Amino acid sequence: MKAVIVSALPVARIIDISHDVPPGDISAAQYLLGRVWRHFPDRTIHVVVVDPGVGTARRAIAAEVGGHRFVAPDNGVLTPVLDQGSIVELSISHDASPTFHGRDVFAPAAVRLAKGEPLAVLGPVVTNPMRSPLPQPRREGREVVGVVVYVDRFGTLITNIPAEWARPGSRLRVNHATVPALTTFGDVNPGELVAFAGSGGTMEIAVRDGSATRKLDAGVGAEIRLI
Amino acid sequence: MKAVIVSALPVARIIDISHDVPPGDISAAQYLLGRVWRHFPDRTIHVVVVDPGVGTARRAIAAEVGGHRFVAPDNGVLTPVLDQGSIVELSISHDASPTFHGRDVFAPAAVRLAKGEPLAVLGPVVTNPMRSPLPQPRREGREVVGVVVYVDRFGTLITNIPAEWARPGSRLRVNHATVPALTTFGDVNPGELVAFAGSGGTMEIAVRDGSATRKLDAGVGAEIRLI
Amino acid sequence: MKAVIVSALPVARIIDISHDVPPGDISAAQYLLGRVWRHFPDRTIHVVVVDPGVGTARRAIAAEVGGHRFVAPDNGVLTPVLDQGSIVELSISHDASPTFHGRDVFAPAAVRLAKGEPLAVLGPVVTNPMRSPLPQPRREGREVVGVVVYVDRFGTLITNIPAEWARPGSRLRVNHATVPALTTFGDVNPGELVAFAGSGGTMEIAVRDGSATRKLDAGVGAEIRLI
Repeated sequence: MKAVIVSALPVARIIDISHDVPPGDISAAQYLLGRVWRHFPDRTIHVVVVDPGVGTARRAIAAEVGGHRFVAPDNGVLTPVLDQGSIVELSISHDASPTFHGRDVFAPAAVRLAKGEPLAVLGPVVTNPMRSPLPQPRREGREVVGVVVYVDRFGTLITNIPAEWARPGSRLRVNHATVPALTTFGDVNPGELVAFAGSGGTMEIAVRDGSATRKLDAGVGAEIRLI
Repeated sequence: MKAVIVSALPVARIIDISHDVPPGDISAAQYLLGRVWRHFPDRTIHVVVVDPGVGTARRAIAAEVGGHRFVAPDNGVLTPVLDQGSIVELSISHDASPTFHGRDVFAPAAVRLAKGEPLAVLGPVVTNPMRSPLPQPRREGREVVGVVVYVDRFGTLITNIPAEWARPGSRLRVNHATVPALTTFGDVNPGELVAFAGSGGTMEIAVRDGSATRKLDAGVGAEIRLI
Repeated sequence: MKAVIVSALPVARIIDISHDVPPGDISAAQYLLGRVWRHFPDRTIHVVVVDPGVGTARRAIAAEVGGHRFVAPDNGVLTPVLDQGSIVELSISHDASPTFHGRDVFAPAAVRLAKGEPLAVLGPVVTNPMRSPLPQPRREGREVVGVVVYVDRFGTLITNIPAEWARPGSRLRVNHATVPALTTFGDVNPGELVAFAGSGGTMEIAVRDGSATRKLDAGVGAEIRLI
């Protein structure tokens, strides 16, 4: 994909966001995209090819949101930006490999956008893109029930519970552990569990100098209760 | 290596092709190189330092093929391009580390080429470079016997059987499984095996939303029969 | 972090040195930094965010050494360069995430330096930075006692014993094995152990076409005797 891009547009600048999305994990890709896209400059083109459905009937799409452009399979991976922008369907050429649209569909579309072609030129408008929103937390009496939506490379559990829902004295329960909501790693001793408002705006559970996913034997999908 | 390159030539653009070649795996590197090099722009310099023999008598070489240049150990890793171009031997300076030619031999040679020095200036012509061609499929009666030459990060088995040798109704046999040759992932249900003409021009065996190497317990070198 | 940098300074060039530092491993990061920084061009800004103490009382610092600049937590990771340059403390804004100073403290500081602000403008001088020097080898009679300070991705054991302390006929002992100090991989057969003066200036122990860490069951901290 990089070769296709630089061959067509030598001045293109390519930045790798992550090499750690598990194969076909649309939720993880969606989480990462939702976290990072706004930090990039206007006019960035985000090439989001997490595409387990390549070769199925799923469409290929491009979207534009506030100066940013996106190319991706229509499998929900663009959910974080779909509500805000315009969307078109990319055509899939007959000679595209039926198993490598990254090289033959998405990279060429990214090049066209980078060269200045307007989104509308790339294909017909899509009004019903697939959405696969990450699970939302719900209130249950005085508690909030959420889940882990991502585990980072440090083993920190990132939940879907908005940080502003926690208060001084809040605790998070996961499996059989109860973890106090504090501010940061410095609030506990090495090896201890701590919960805090994470850098992405939701509550996270970590172990200082350790791995919460290992200590708690909990991963993506684990239920988290904010008490 | 990157530091050496940008120190000598600040405008050099560096693109990582893969961080996933297993240590010393000349076959894997050769397969990847054969797949990608043509997609890069003319005048690209490919720095291919998969070099288990560093510090042995193996030579260091540079090659030029249709506007592309290559620097690599003379261990067969350049086999995909050797038949088409000119080849020279790189000198190995006395103060080069005997275990890190990437930094002290290949990166400096790449810089010289990038600065415009012609290949012939870098060393004497080599007429007998080492070749280690990937195994070739053979016909056996009405069947074709090939092997897996690469397994990608999705667990897909990539064979050496040219895609055009398969016909409607063909099947691939590996271990005790028989897999129909179809077109793409959409032709089977999640979890099922499928074979298809891969994006590199040879037959591949995959599991939709899964890993063929795991499901079939087969990897590089496994025999594949096209029936 | 990359998004923050390119948004503020589109012409910035970013080079990844390693994706393989284990989480929070200050020693490994320090070893790598000590190896590579001098190879980069003058005026390089090294962003060294291996930061297990984020959110503790540890300071954030910037340093300047011979035309190179560094931003990092004050946790010892800059030890290889601290003796030679000037050091200042970076301020940590109130709205910085208490768990992601890479994005909110170090990347912005790197941008300021890259834009030409002098180090002194970034904060008050630090005279007592934290140091965590890698262990030093000691002489014990006619032997030298060192340790493994790093294991590379090939499984090679990199020691802290200066290469110039070895002589023809020297041997290295690790666990129950005794390994001859030779010159390079070509001096032994595939699968055999060999010690040599490594490309970083200290003795290394490797297995030709194999992994010394696996063959010797030895890793970082293992005692090495030069005999």
